[in-house]
Amino acid sequence: MPKLIDHAARRAQYAEATWRVILSQGIEAMSVRNVATEAGVSVGSLRHLFPTQDALAGFAMSLVAERVEARIRAVPARTDPVEYVTSLLLEVLPLDTTRRAEAQVWLAFTAAAATRPALAEVHREQFEALAELCRRVVRHLAAADRIPADRDLGAEARRLHALLDGLTLHVLTAGADDAQQGLERHLTSVVS
Amino acid sequence: MPKLIDHAARRAQYAEATWRVILSQGIEAMSVRNVATEAGVSVGSLRHLFPTQDALAGFAMSLVAERVEARIRAVPARTDPVEYVTSLLLEVLPLDTTRRAEAQVWLAFTAAAATRPALAEVHREQFEALAELCRRVVRHLAAADRIPADRDLGAEARRLHALLDGLTLHVLTAGADDAQQGLERHLTSVVS
Repeated sequence: MPKLIDHAARRAQYAEATWRVILSQGIEAMSVRNVATEAGVSVGSLRHLFPTQDALAGFAMSLVAERVEARIRAVPARTDPVEYVTSLLLEVLPLDTTRRAEAQVWLAFTAAAATRPALAEVHREQFEALAELCRRVVRHLAAADRIPADRDLGAEARRLHALLDGLTLHVLTAGADDAQQGLERHLTSVVS
Repeated sequence: MPKLIDHAARRAQYAEATWRVILSQGIEAMSVRNVATEAGVSVGSLRHLFPTQDALAGFAMSLVAERVEARIRAVPARTDPVEYVTSLLLEVLPLDTTRRAEAQVWLAFTAAAATRPALAEVHREQFEALAELCRRVVRHLAAADRIPADRDLGAEARRLHALLDGLTLHVLTAGADDAQQGLERHLTSVVS
């Protein structure tokens, strides 16, 4: 089905143009016109796939999550449970140029979601996906007897999730260069 | 000096109008014109105190930090060190309507700082202020012998800072209602 594949590739191309507009000029510049210019296509071509700015923004935001999830699925299993969950969680932190750009777009969309219902829905899905990853990680450690039995696993997962988002924010907005150590230190303090 | 006081009050009034515009329409609506309309004054009056949008935005952002700091200074001292630092840190979390609005404005400015150098500078000051509060809290606990001697105090302060920002984000963007418990549980796990 070459037509479907074409569509998917073109949608990704427009989403990436949306990211570039946001990264260079801020979310206030994310208009269908600006994105079409950035992608080198006509406004009509863009509108053919994304009739509204909300549709474009929602797709551009969900593609961030899709890329992160694809990387997480590609992380090879490891014997040591702490090493394994660390390598999963590192995929979420903005530790290289690609992940930093993704996270910057995520932050712009996250802030904008407060006044844009269409983005709020996609944000909610992304929030739940990371929450679920954190629960998976904590369950994995507990199943390997690496978390003390008296710990509240749900609370540990929520603490991990908040810490990951806080570390991400600090890399993006304050140039923090110790997010990886921050995560590893936290995991060390949690496991037994 | 009634004139100076007038100016300060008017600047605060315009900053609060800026917050309301951001909260209801997003940061993309934060123009001098929209803020003047929201404040019920002419564009000229607003420009008299804030010649540029950057000047207005920078002041509106710094007023958020000023309000938070005033509340923190007003927190009464307590004998129990853990109770005392908890009451300090709760002032930072968006647990009521006022603090929630402040935090939402902070998030909008934080995301926008990536492409607006004038905001990046104010953001950096706010980041440092919260980082310093976290260091103070950790030093206070250590001085009271409530943190194990082998802990890296700088790392504990940075973990606390990231956790606070992550919890704030989760209240704002996912309606999390357990930020206070999340903070208290974390402090319990850190102190001895």
